[in-house]
Formats: sequence, structure tokens, C-alpha cells
Amino acid sequence: MRRLRLIQAALLLALLAPLAAGAQPARAAFKETVLSDPQPGFDDPRRILLQISTSDEREINNILWNAVNLQKFYGIDNVKIAVVAFGPGMVALYKDSPVRERIESLLKYGIEFLGCGNTMETTHRSPDDLIEGVDYVQAGIAEIVERQLDGWIYIKP
Amino acid sequence: MRRLRLIQAALLLALLAPLAAGAQPARAAFKETVLSDPQPGFDDPRRILLQISTSDEREINNILWNAVNLQKFYGIDNVKIAVVAFGPGMVALYKDSPVRERIESLLKYGIEFLGCGNTMETTHRSPDDLIEGVDYVQAGIAEIVERQLDGWIYIKP
Amino acid sequence: MRRLRLIQAALLLALLAPLAAGAQPARAAFKETVLSDPQPGFDDPRRILLQISTSDEREINNILWNAVNLQKFYGIDNVKIAVVAFGPGMVALYKDSPVRERIESLLKYGIEFLGCGNTMETTHRSPDDLIEGVDYVQAGIAEIVERQLDGWIYIKP
Repeated sequence: MRRLRLIQAALLLALLAPLAAGAQPARAAFKETVLSDPQPGFDDPRRILLQISTSDEREINNILWNAVNLQKFYGIDNVKIAVVAFGPGMVALYKDSPVRERIESLLKYGIEFLGCGNTMETTHRSPDDLIEGVDYVQAGIAEIVERQLDGWIYIKP
Repeated sequence: MRRLRLIQAALLLALLAPLAAGAQPARAAFKETVLSDPQPGFDDPRRILLQISTSDEREINNILWNAVNLQKFYGIDNVKIAVVAFGPGMVALYKDSPVRERIESLLKYGIEFLGCGNTMETTHRSPDDLIEGVDYVQAGIAEIVERQLDGWIYIKP
Repeated sequence: MRRLRLIQAALLLALLAPLAAGAQPARAAFKETVLSDPQPGFDDPRRILLQISTSDEREINNILWNAVNLQKFYGIDNVKIAVVAFGPGMVALYKDSPVRERIESLLKYGIEFLGCGNTMETTHRSPDDLIEGVDYVQAGIAEIVERQLDGWIYIKP
């Protein structure tokens, strides 16, 4: 009889445990991002390619935030970031850009900005229109292809 | 003369043939998606990374549809899907999300949802605001980088 | 004394040089896109996957421009381009598409267009609705996964 009562008590506890857990909903778990090998470092920095293909100022600002977050996450010496713009996204890189000051600041932090020569030609803009420090390639989209093949990680934020 | 008539008839046929073909337009061909090696399976599931970076409810719903379509295509045991949100996309993962029920349902089907700690900090939201079962990392964008390096396939739907 | 004056002159020049450069702001530098190995060619063309998942006509037109720019950059024989549409992006591929003529023209240039069977089923459209020459797969998103695994370079323009 004693043994039976013990089993009954154990069963009761087992039944009640989930209820108690349910009354106190689990907090979202923080997950540490697992760094893949080879680990990023000064000699082997992560190489990350971000794309701007929108003219929406809010979206462009969000994309630029990602560059900042990546430098914060990896440490500025352990990551190389290139932002490639093309199509409507080119508005971000001209001297009359709504985000000119942010881009000038990010350039100082070593972030690379590349414009698209094809887009400039089609829209009758000149390389002189680009913010100082911004470079350009013939075709932004081809630059994204070739860098991916070279091991850069592509993200369209 | 006989030969000339034969040539004329042949020419006429050659001229009419394309017209006949045109009258009965070709139906679009169904193409079977070719599975790459190694084939996906329980022991070696496809690992797919979807991104939510928009607050647009219609777009978010479309992204979630892709998760469902991927499970349907591969079979639920042969694919692991992680949905990483950051920036404006974080609205999808909070308890007041317009798609809360869908996400709760997808969580039950084993789809992983990860929020961005940086975005939560910037927008003064707490991990307690996240839908139960949703986890978070420090930087959503860095998680996407590291998982790509680990072999996950990245798609921004 | 003579030597001192020479040094003074040299110092003065060194001090003035940056000022002179500053007065004439640097023109944005053109950067040649570095082609990764193996070099693209007729026998080993670049394989590039573009995605249409928006119904916005302006955005769709921009995506199609990228296909043209890629052929221009690599040369038509050195690149294979597949455009995969799904979700709202499917509107681009039907006979009543706002960009039907452009797609028919791009098809003639060897660009491949693939629709999504799942989207067609959900939206009650038939393969007969597709522009002639456009094919379709069961799930556009799965096609993008498998082609990436096969070495295609994915870009969402």
C-alpha cells in the first residue's frame, strides 16, 4: 500500500509539473550565434556583401544599420563590408543623397560603397555626382556575382 | 514542269507549317526540379534560411507561405527551416503580431523563428514580448552570415 | 644654409600638397570587377538566378534590366540566366503581364523564365495562362534552393 501511495504521489507530481510550468510562460531563449570555421579575425575577416536596390529612404537607413550591427558584432577589424548599389538604390550614393552624412561616416569606418556604372549611364548621372570616397563598377549586379564566387556572403537586408 | 510544281508545293508547305504551329500554341512545360546531391533526407535535411525584414503584413504572409511550400516539397522530415527576422521584420515575432497564430502553428511544425536582439534594444522591446517558442540572437544579420558559412541556403523571399 | 632652405621648401610643399588636392575633390574611382576563377566562358558560363517575388511593375522592370546588364557584362554566350518567379511575382509571367513584350524579347535572348506551380494552384491560374516559352516548376522557392546547391549564384535584385 505504501508503495502504491508513493507511485500515486509521483504520478500526481508528474501531471501537475507541466501545469505549473504553463502558469509561468517560458521566456524567449537567447541563442548565441555559433561562429563557423574558420573563425573570423584580423587575418581572415568575414567578407559581407550588402545590397541597396531601393530608393526608399527608410529601407536604405535600415540597410545601413545592418552594416553598423555587423561591425559591432564581429569587431571592426574582423569584418569587411561592401555595400553595392544599383538601379533605384543609386540615389543613396550621390552627393544629394538623403543619407549622405551617414555614408560619409560609414566610409570613415572602412565600409566600402560601390555604385553601378550602367545605372549612372541610363539615368544620365556622372561619377562626379558620387559622394567622395564612393567608387563604382561597370555593373553592380555583376560585382555581386563575382564577389559571391570569391567567397563573400551576400545578404539583401 | 512536274519538278517545278513539287518545289512550289514544298515551299507552300514550308510557309504554312509555322502558321499551323501558331494556331495551336505550345503549353508551358512542367519542369521537375532536379534535386542536387547529396539528396535531402532525414539524416541530411536541406537547411534553408528565410529572412523577414519587412513590416508589411502581406509580404510577411507570403514569406510564411514559402516555409509551408518548402515543407510540402521536401517532406517535413527532410528539411530544416529557420526564419530570421530583423529591423522592421521584428513586428512579425511579437505577441501583438498580425500573424501570431500562423507563427504559433509553424512552430508546431518544427520551423525555427529567430529574432534580433539589436533591433529589440533599439526599439525598446523585451524578449518577453516575443511569441512563446520564438528565440533570439544578438544580431539577426550576423546569424544569417554564419549559417550561410555553415551551409544553410539563404533566400529573401 | 642652402641645405636648410631646401628642407624648408620640401616641408612647405609637403604641407601644401594635401590642400591642393582638397581644392580639387577626388573623382570617384572606377573599379574593374575582378572575375573569379574559373573564368566565365562558353564552356563554363556563369549561372545566375534572379528572383521575382513582387507584383510591382517598376520593380519587375528593374529586375529584368539586371538580366540585360548581366548579358552585356559577361557576353551572351558566357552566362546563363534563370529568372524564377513565385507568389505575387507570378503576375510577370502570365499572358496579361504588364511586361509581356519584354519577357518575350528576353526569352529570345536565351533567358530562362520559370513560374511556380504552387502559386498558380493557390491563385487558380493555369499553365495555359503563362507566356509562351515560360516553363514552371512545382515550387519556385525549392528550385532556387536546389540550383544554389548546384552552384548557381542567387541574387534578389
